[in-house]
Amino acid sequence: MKKHNFSAGPCILPQSVFKQASQAILDFNNSGLSILEISHRSKDFVSVMDEAQKLVLDLLNLEGKGYKALFLQGGASTQFLMTAYNLLENKAAYLNTGTWSSKAIKEAKLFGDVEEVASSKDENFNYIPKNFNVPADADYFHCTSNNTIFGTQLKEFPTTGGIPLVCDMSSDIFSKKLDFSKFGIIYAGAQKNMGPAGTTLVVIKEEILGKVSRQIPSMMDYKTHIDKESMFNTPPVFAVYTSMLTLKWLKEKGGIEAIQKLNEEKAALIYNEIDRNPLFEGFAAVEDRSIMNATFNLKDEKYKSLFEDLVKAAHINGINGHRSVGGYRASMYNALPKESVEVLVNVMKELETQA
Amino acid sequence: MKKHNFSAGPCILPQSVFKQASQAILDFNNSGLSILEISHRSKDFVSVMDEAQKLVLDLLNLEGKGYKALFLQGGASTQFLMTAYNLLENKAAYLNTGTWSSKAIKEAKLFGDVEEVASSKDENFNYIPKNFNVPADADYFHCTSNNTIFGTQLKEFPTTGGIPLVCDMSSDIFSKKLDFSKFGIIYAGAQKNMGPAGTTLVVIKEEILGKVSRQIPSMMDYKTHIDKESMFNTPPVFAVYTSMLTLKWLKEKGGIEAIQKLNEEKAALIYNEIDRNPLFEGFAAVEDRSIMNATFNLKDEKYKSLFEDLVKAAHINGINGHRSVGGYRASMYNALPKESVEVLVNVMKELETQA
Repeated sequence: MKKHNFSAGPCILPQSVFKQASQAILDFNNSGLSILEISHRSKDFVSVMDEAQKLVLDLLNLEGKGYKALFLQGGASTQFLMTAYNLLENKAAYLNTGTWSSKAIKEAKLFGDVEEVASSKDENFNYIPKNFNVPADADYFHCTSNNTIFGTQLKEFPTTGGIPLVCDMSSDIFSKKLDFSKFGIIYAGAQKNMGPAGTTLVVIKEEILGKVSRQIPSMMDYKTHIDKESMFNTPPVFAVYTSMLTLKWLKEKGGIEAIQKLNEEKAALIYNEIDRNPLFEGFAAVEDRSIMNATFNLKDEKYKSLFEDLVKAAHINGINGHRSVGGYRASMYNALPKESVEVLVNVMKELETQA
Repeated sequence: MKKHNFSAGPCILPQSVFKQASQAILDFNNSGLSILEISHRSKDFVSVMDEAQKLVLDLLNLEGKGYKALFLQGGASTQFLMTAYNLLENKAAYLNTGTWSSKAIKEAKLFGDVEEVASSKDENFNYIPKNFNVPADADYFHCTSNNTIFGTQLKEFPTTGGIPLVCDMSSDIFSKKLDFSKFGIIYAGAQKNMGPAGTTLVVIKEEILGKVSRQIPSMMDYKTHIDKESMFNTPPVFAVYTSMLTLKWLKEKGGIEAIQKLNEEKAALIYNEIDRNPLFEGFAAVEDRSIMNATFNLKDEKYKSLFEDLVKAAHINGINGHRSVGGYRASMYNALPKESVEVLVNVMKELETQA
């Protein structure tokens, strides 16, 4: 019995990807070798890396626009540091919409001044601040597009007047259409919509680099990785391979446009039920609700064990909320079937019947 | 037909590990979930991480001696940087035995003075310098235990008189017995003797930390990762899992002592043939030869295509030498069966017959 996996990340990937990845561990491309034992300099793997990079730029509609796609290691947490290392000369502007934004701000402060243009900390990050100004003298503006923990999502990005727009899209990249050419750097841990934990995508507009005076350690320097096409040192071969499979799956499904339609349908299902069902309430401000992570609570804790029993009986996995919010969180990344959301919604309805 | 895989890394792992890893991608621990989609905070994965860390300390005989085992990301190249970030206040001493040592030195120079205590660059790193002094005022001494590219290996480590001994053991960790408690930091990319590319083992004596005055970014700070037990951010779940399986395999085989015996037998087979066969010559100084990577050349290039045809016909993979040495390199990591070395030796004999 396959589970309905609402994990926040690492999270569900397409079943066809699990099958191909599993097979490649026994025999990769009929080479008689496992994907885990081939050289990263072998022709077979170099073409995996090339294809993964091409698929990223293709899906984001960034081909021929001066961007490079890199597959690095260290998660978004390393990007908090690398963005500042590479871009922060005097002052950077940050929007604080949650735990990950706050961590990004903390790391950037080691490299220069940080101006927090706005924060929703006053309401435990249950909304996205609007109407803030990005200072014209900032080296860049940084934001988090989707806040996994709180279930909020930026619907619009500010105009930055030529200042590079840097965005942590870990939890909503490839989930909905955007004009990605507005961004100077987009980064994302793979483990939501792209692949297994262990690689981090960085999409970077080359022209924004080379403007800081400090010496940057090789591994922290985007230019190192651009020059060596993500092969400065041994890349996380399996994570890149599995990401490539997932990106290919997405392209075959019709790309971002097609998946956005599905994601909006899934989100509508759960939010309609949260709003309709008298036993539940949503956590995030309605206009800022994420289509990836729906956060909600029981109005009355007395139904907790009944609800959780029903959840378990329905083979639903991973809907406990993060400790800083409590309650429940249904993460509905690209690979989660609509059917899984329907199962969860039915459990919520069933609770209402039994309560 | 399974190949004889002499790749320098990523490289061969035990066949039983490939099977278990492949199965866990379809269904991990009968959970109904893939190892790629489970939460890294799930009980099942936390126990994988715990077991991997315990196995490391157990195999290295470091339990109860003040050490922590960390599974990080970014490869040894990131450790070149992190060691200096965490330990280099004024001056560090480095032994230069090849490409990787040179790269480590380059990164350390961004953080303080580096004294190169000795180098074998004069002879294209085909030997290990001896009789050098480690300066008493250095913050630490750094060396590379095995030089994958050149096929040399440190047989003895210097006495450092209380200065932390830091060692890049990427290509020979877990291959032979050492008094590992002499070391302050041991680090190693997984992709030789431990697991797939995508995680880096750091074994660290806690008491050597906290002695530099600089502020260290969170992801670069060993203390961050010690405090969070390698879970400060999402770890490379699959690479850690597969490393745990490989470490378990090693323990079941009898640990380092048993594998050392096998490794020495494999090395003797190939080096005896290199020395016996009039068509070949070894690259590395005889007393410094690595038991992991044997580097050798044809004395006469005219046999090149015949030799390489025989190699191919015998299903041998990955014996081309690194471009900075040329010729051939047979990497014989822990999981390479003795039979594979026998097949290679027979090919070398066959060349002699046919030449």
